[in-house]
Amino acid sequence: MGSGYGENVRISIFGQSHSAAIGVTIDGLPAGETLDLAQLQRFLNRRAPGGKEYATARRESDVPEILCGLVGGRTCGAPLTAIIRNGDAQPQDYAALKSTPRPGHADFTAQVKFDGAQDAAGGGHFSGRLTAPLCIAGGICLQLLAREGIRMISRIASIGGVSDAGELTESTADKPFPVVSDARGEQMRAAIAAARAEGDSVGGVIECAVLGAPAGLGEPMFGGMENRIAAIVFGIPAVKGIEFGAGFAAAAMRGSENNDAFALQDGRVVTKTNHCGGILGGITTGMPIRFCTAIKPTPSIAHEQESVDLDTMQNVKLRVGGRHDPCIVPRAVPCVEAAAAIAVYDALLARRREVRK
Amino acid sequence: MGSGYGENVRISIFGQSHSAAIGVTIDGLPAGETLDLAQLQRFLNRRAPGGKEYATARRESDVPEILCGLVGGRTCGAPLTAIIRNGDAQPQDYAALKSTPRPGHADFTAQVKFDGAQDAAGGGHFSGRLTAPLCIAGGICLQLLAREGIRMISRIASIGGVSDAGELTESTADKPFPVVSDARGEQMRAAIAAARAEGDSVGGVIECAVLGAPAGLGEPMFGGMENRIAAIVFGIPAVKGIEFGAGFAAAAMRGSENNDAFALQDGRVVTKTNHCGGILGGITTGMPIRFCTAIKPTPSIAHEQESVDLDTMQNVKLRVGGRHDPCIVPRAVPCVEAAAAIAVYDALLARRREVRK
Amino acid sequence: MGSGYGENVRISIFGQSHSAAIGVTIDGLPAGETLDLAQLQRFLNRRAPGGKEYATARRESDVPEILCGLVGGRTCGAPLTAIIRNGDAQPQDYAALKSTPRPGHADFTAQVKFDGAQDAAGGGHFSGRLTAPLCIAGGICLQLLAREGIRMISRIASIGGVSDAGELTESTADKPFPVVSDARGEQMRAAIAAARAEGDSVGGVIECAVLGAPAGLGEPMFGGMENRIAAIVFGIPAVKGIEFGAGFAAAAMRGSENNDAFALQDGRVVTKTNHCGGILGGITTGMPIRFCTAIKPTPSIAHEQESVDLDTMQNVKLRVGGRHDPCIVPRAVPCVEAAAAIAVYDALLARRREVRK
Amino acid sequence: MGSGYGENVRISIFGQSHSAAIGVTIDGLPAGETLDLAQLQRFLNRRAPGGKEYATARRESDVPEILCGLVGGRTCGAPLTAIIRNGDAQPQDYAALKSTPRPGHADFTAQVKFDGAQDAAGGGHFSGRLTAPLCIAGGICLQLLAREGIRMISRIASIGGVSDAGELTESTADKPFPVVSDARGEQMRAAIAAARAEGDSVGGVIECAVLGAPAGLGEPMFGGMENRIAAIVFGIPAVKGIEFGAGFAAAAMRGSENNDAFALQDGRVVTKTNHCGGILGGITTGMPIRFCTAIKPTPSIAHEQESVDLDTMQNVKLRVGGRHDPCIVPRAVPCVEAAAAIAVYDALLARRREVRK
Repeated sequence: MGSGYGENVRISIFGQSHSAAIGVTIDGLPAGETLDLAQLQRFLNRRAPGGKEYATARRESDVPEILCGLVGGRTCGAPLTAIIRNGDAQPQDYAALKSTPRPGHADFTAQVKFDGAQDAAGGGHFSGRLTAPLCIAGGICLQLLAREGIRMISRIASIGGVSDAGELTESTADKPFPVVSDARGEQMRAAIAAARAEGDSVGGVIECAVLGAPAGLGEPMFGGMENRIAAIVFGIPAVKGIEFGAGFAAAAMRGSENNDAFALQDGRVVTKTNHCGGILGGITTGMPIRFCTAIKPTPSIAHEQESVDLDTMQNVKLRVGGRHDPCIVPRAVPCVEAAAAIAVYDALLARRREVRK
Repeated sequence: MGSGYGENVRISIFGQSHSAAIGVTIDGLPAGETLDLAQLQRFLNRRAPGGKEYATARRESDVPEILCGLVGGRTCGAPLTAIIRNGDAQPQDYAALKSTPRPGHADFTAQVKFDGAQDAAGGGHFSGRLTAPLCIAGGICLQLLAREGIRMISRIASIGGVSDAGELTESTADKPFPVVSDARGEQMRAAIAAARAEGDSVGGVIECAVLGAPAGLGEPMFGGMENRIAAIVFGIPAVKGIEFGAGFAAAAMRGSENNDAFALQDGRVVTKTNHCGGILGGITTGMPIRFCTAIKPTPSIAHEQESVDLDTMQNVKLRVGGRHDPCIVPRAVPCVEAAAAIAVYDALLARRREVRK
Repeated sequence: MGSGYGENVRISIFGQSHSAAIGVTIDGLPAGETLDLAQLQRFLNRRAPGGKEYATARRESDVPEILCGLVGGRTCGAPLTAIIRNGDAQPQDYAALKSTPRPGHADFTAQVKFDGAQDAAGGGHFSGRLTAPLCIAGGICLQLLAREGIRMISRIASIGGVSDAGELTESTADKPFPVVSDARGEQMRAAIAAARAEGDSVGGVIECAVLGAPAGLGEPMFGGMENRIAAIVFGIPAVKGIEFGAGFAAAAMRGSENNDAFALQDGRVVTKTNHCGGILGGITTGMPIRFCTAIKPTPSIAHEQESVDLDTMQNVKLRVGGRHDPCIVPRAVPCVEAAAAIAVYDALLARRREVRK
Repeated sequence: MGSGYGENVRISIFGQSHSAAIGVTIDGLPAGETLDLAQLQRFLNRRAPGGKEYATARRESDVPEILCGLVGGRTCGAPLTAIIRNGDAQPQDYAALKSTPRPGHADFTAQVKFDGAQDAAGGGHFSGRLTAPLCIAGGICLQLLAREGIRMISRIASIGGVSDAGELTESTADKPFPVVSDARGEQMRAAIAAARAEGDSVGGVIECAVLGAPAGLGEPMFGGMENRIAAIVFGIPAVKGIEFGAGFAAAAMRGSENNDAFALQDGRVVTKTNHCGGILGGITTGMPIRFCTAIKPTPSIAHEQESVDLDTMQNVKLRVGGRHDPCIVPRAVPCVEAAAAIAVYDALLARRREVRK
């Protein structure tokens, strides 16, 4: 029951890494919205394996077929469903995974959860491939948000311990490797290449900011924007932490440093700093919603690892074959944007109930 | 609509800092469970202001009255509602808050959200006081979890930049100031005292571990344990970040370091390390669920701060009167436990649907 | 988990017939709405036992205490909780109900459901008394609907086989016994009196119409207005059927009779008849939403009845003591209005998300 | 947001009458369940147009393609999605529907709801065609229920005012026209043929019973079995009423008649009659769950009808072309079974949370 999200716009993701197709249904999109499918495809392409140095060699075209919900290019009020056919299924690669779970993957927990009935091929429903339908839904929400003056910027804040320099700005928007400091970006790529050369992998941190969101989004307590964004972002495989504004660093600050002073700017209330990440009491201040997401290193590595044979219940050594990304952080950037876009758009629809006309 | 949480056990929190009462309704508790109200009270007392050096002087007795749902000390299957009367309301302290929002508080966002109709007294529904009903619900879930062999340990991992030493163990259970290293605890208290002396405040990090949770809790994607725990923990005021297992540190590790090797122990599959925090693919491994929560420094400080007069729309200086906690981290520890207990118990009930009998 | 309802305004009902209190929490009320508590009380009084001929002698004052959510008479955006203390608890009356379930009551199903831990006193959470908090929530929604030009009229369509005559109009609004034909009303009262004299009871049908609801409320399929209204109205004890517009009679009509012709009236699209009950495809047409609710005869009767002793597992005879309503239909009228008001208001809030400004 | 249903097993229906495909996603199916796809197809065929006298001539093969969720014929724990391609789309038939709504259809309400952006072709998302994915989900639930000893029987209780005779039994199970009295069935067919000859249509009532459901399903108040079943059954187009057990007839009975006496049978508590339809207090008694559903006459008729031209805002005459079912009641029988199966299975999963092992 975990593959759905949202109260006002509801997404339902389906599919496994090697099922006939994967896809998403979005219920609750306003009717009459024109979708730019070419723009959506460009967004999806950002998730696809790009340069050869840090991506898997498996080809994923990821061109969605929209089955319903769109008439003449406009949403019609009915649920929109889009699917992507899985072309090059090679389930034989994964035959042994059921008995010998890969460390860091969901193989073992899926085995327990589904009592051995899970689709083990390619990670099944737990595969990173399932972020493609997430990006379809998120890409659509991004278009709708843009019409309300809300847009998203993001960057790779660190990879393998190498941090970007400078502040996140819109400068990263069109970069294939989105960092502020290209010099640091080069060091990150070097870290990826080094990991690849050693059959290893690296993780990283993604920073994201939602610009233009009005004050007043989110609800108190469990309906706060932090809750809503975290509840969807942790749905991206490999995410292990999230922080808003100064986040963990705020925990070491004094109140007098961390508090964001209010001020007037062009007749509008702003905060002079944004340590709170644009959220106070769960509700947006009107400043950018800023958050960082920690991505663990890809668990697929070429090293020999220790595992357990669940059939014979013996300790065994495991070597995972095939080609894998030494770092998924660059590809995770649009996934984090997609997830946040869905959360923000859902909150925006909720907000419409409240505003007096 | 944000004050409810849970799919299988549903909590609904109500009340404002200075309303007649605050409370919680819990729907979905199994019938026939004996609740130990004395034990619940001891749990609630952990949240109450304890030692004089780091707590507010406002007296909060927080003895809940159970209005329904309990017959002869046992749950009866009907919703359980408990309330706490608000005794010493002093709304006059807060008269100016509506026009001049305090930095770091929800005053401004509540004003925008509710168009000026919010209860500004004491932070209203956004007040930390509303963690009392959260702790009632969580304290009850903790008792039910204990019957399934699941318990929770936690510690203050850092305050004001001073970190605890050593690994989290059950040694902290009965300590009024729960740290592993009492020497470090002394330094933390000193940091609090220093902040108090300067009219300032400090934040910190709380580490929590759920012991004894079986493998198989949680659902894929948005129903994962990280999603579920984050979605409730961010409901505690002042929480700005959460990480599971190695969390943000994992982002700087290699896959070969971060992956947790599987091994057999007493015929049971375990992981040799627990960088994943007991969660893979959103689903519990059977190892402790470990997570850290970042608490920002209390925004209430005695310093003069910059704000805006929303009536006159002018920049103003603000000095917040009254006595306030220079550090809420010690009192937040049971709140984090309560929140996690509700999330884990909710997932445990969900799991019961699945297990073949 | 059944005691909550609503997606955009969420009500949570709690309490048992003889618990310390019963009540309701309403989350999602717009902030800044003035509530007229005297008017609410008048609405609640309609549910209270009125004339001596058809009502129980138990006194129920039902004056709610509002614990939170209201500041200076206005909603503040936080959940509103109202409770009613249970004054004259006499649990000894009900001691035997647990072992010997009363026919037509929930005693047996509660016993099975909650494995003997249920609160058997007075029907516990299944008691008709729990319609008081439903009426609190519904009475509030009625006030908010009135501000949008939406109001509700209803009548007793039949009691004990005696049908009212004429069409439902606003003429019934101020009648203590709301029927169009007072002559028929007299016959209904006679039927009630006859049942009372024989230690028996009668049921009836309530007709309700929501006037002034705009076209466009409700969603396709499971979100339709019929689904939404039915899902809450069946929460009133003793309701066993619901039909919209011509309902079951439509099943015997020809399409050419049943179809409602569209026409223009004052530049607005109307239907010349309203067999569809103001709902097509689940969505309101702008004509009155009309529905009828079947109420079974009160199961509490003075006759000796057959039951089973669940302790000894033997067939036994049962005679239920105490005084009971020979007919709850008049008191159920405001309950049906309350339920429908909540459903319509929830749909109205949902609709606000969609309308382009 | 109305096209989803269920708390423990969640169905999401998508598609329009003339979109590329229609389908359903089912999230929450237990893993490891073998599905008999041939049996599912036989169930779906019951919904397809059967005999020439009462069905549309449009060919609907309705062979679903299962995109995911099934591995080697067994559920794998991931959401199951099945689609049916729409083959013979002829959108040109429906060009005028947007400006001139057909009486009795959702054309007008869809126009208002979606502000003209709706898919008008063939009724779009409101089309009866969307009951095909409902039947896929329901057919799967029926298989899972059968493994728990729960099965469903149903009959046409009336068509066009002609009622079936006798009590509903399993005798109707294999009949293409499911009535107890075949003589009455012939009269019903004659009523259909007469309506067809006159370019008109007829409606009817479907009776359904769920056999073998254990006592204890359903929750109090809004979680009752009546609420749950009504909330999904009204999702079938043309349903205008539902009653449980004696239903509206109970409203005219005395309590002494309507109350179902408890008795022991083979050591098990039963009721001697079943006027309550197997549900007391919203919770199953262990007796058959019985309910009747009113289906209005098909709104599509050949007669000239009155409508409105929404472009010119003038009253107009409308004649709907094409071939249409003069009676959808026979095809609605499996739809009602499907809907009820989903509701009962969802409640059965909920119940698993509660039962002590």
